[in-house]
Amino acid sequence: MSYVNIKVTREGVTDRQKAVLIKGVTDLLAQVLNKPPALTHVVIDEVELANWGVGGLPAPEFRRQSQQSK
Amino acid sequence: MSYVNIKVTREGVTDRQKAVLIKGVTDLLAQVLNKPPALTHVVIDEVELANWGVGGLPAPEFRRQSQQSK
Amino acid sequence: MSYVNIKVTREGVTDRQKAVLIKGVTDLLAQVLNKPPALTHVVIDEVELANWGVGGLPAPEFRRQSQQSK
Amino acid sequence: MSYVNIKVTREGVTDRQKAVLIKGVTDLLAQVLNKPPALTHVVIDEVELANWGVGGLPAPEFRRQSQQSK
Amino acid sequence: MSYVNIKVTREGVTDRQKAVLIKGVTDLLAQVLNKPPALTHVVIDEVELANWGVGGLPAPEFRRQSQQSK
Amino acid sequence: MSYVNIKVTREGVTDRQKAVLIKGVTDLLAQVLNKPPALTHVVIDEVELANWGVGGLPAPEFRRQSQQSK
Repeated sequence: MSYVNIKVTREGVTDRQKAVLIKGVTDLLAQVLNKPPALTHVVIDEVELANWGVGGLPAPEFRRQSQQSK
Repeated sequence: MSYVNIKVTREGVTDRQKAVLIKGVTDLLAQVLNKPPALTHVVIDEVELANWGVGGLPAPEFRRQSQQSK
Repeated sequence: MSYVNIKVTREGVTDRQKAVLIKGVTDLLAQVLNKPPALTHVVIDEVELANWGVGGLPAPEFRRQSQQSK
Repeated sequence: MSYVNIKVTREGVTDRQKAVLIKGVTDLLAQVLNKPPALTHVVIDEVELANWGVGGLPAPEFRRQSQQSK
Repeated sequence: MSYVNIKVTREGVTDRQKAVLIKGVTDLLAQVLNKPPALTHVVIDEVELANWGVGGLPAPEFRRQSQQSK
Repeated sequence: MSYVNIKVTREGVTDRQKAVLIKGVTDLLAQVLNKPPALTHVVIDEVELANWGVGGLPAPEFRRQSQQSK
């Protein structure tokens, strides 16, 4: 049994992409740890950009500064 | 002190049902572990069907295949 | 499908008590939301007392002060 | 490296307030544990009032009763 | 930026297997959503068998019954 | 009401440091969002280095490579 929670920023992730993530993670756990897919649950959380911080800044500001420092 | 996070698919759970879940979990922790309700927090997350995977498939596809295999 | 995470302080919770919590939460989700038990996963985390804070204090200190204010 | 998840009720938290929370938590981890901000991620979850329970009651009802008992 | 939490039962997962999981999930997010690996954090939680429930039973009992019903 | 989960690597964080984190986060939520400390819970998780990945590598290997690239 396994439970995987994937958090990414909410930026137009499509249902097709979600399906590929779910399949990919489930297969990985089956291959590496022999986990049966029927007992593997995956939950994807899409987080608003303003609600994600890194480097002490909200994501939009973090990206702006990363761009400028290039 | 206790913290419980309940994740279910977003499919029209009513406020009344949420209240029953909150009451039920809080009572359970009080009965089994003597946890004071005032220090028990419960957070319910409703997850879009496309964001929940089991058996390597998004929930809608998982259900479709489960139906067919009956 | 449902996923429940229960966090309590690590204070000698027995395997029997854990089994009762697992059964109780799974039954609650079946009764209230008609969730099939086979697709309900419950994970219990036991947290060291020093790692849990409430009221701005670690649990041991919080309890000491709660006792004194009675 | 650090990861912080802040859950609060959804009640009009502004982007400015979110930025202050992200900055504050990141600075705290840098000061207390010497964690480099570039490796500190903060995710804020805003939870609907009906989905948060304390004292065995959903937040709106909990607040109503807390008011009355004053 | 992405954050992935993988929960599996504590049953002798090796550091090598953990490294393969971390690499696999990070590559998946890079391929599917173009997420930069430097901003992808993965945390693996190993959960005691008695602390994981499925089908209303702790994992050891769930497995015993699954074996018998074959 | 608020719930904060802080995940850091397990590297000898002292009880004193945990108390400062708990106090700091609780005060921050009180100042920024007017959250009453009595309803703010903080849980600190200490994660084994081998169980934390960033940049596609477990933390020990990530640090080794970061050192070399300086």
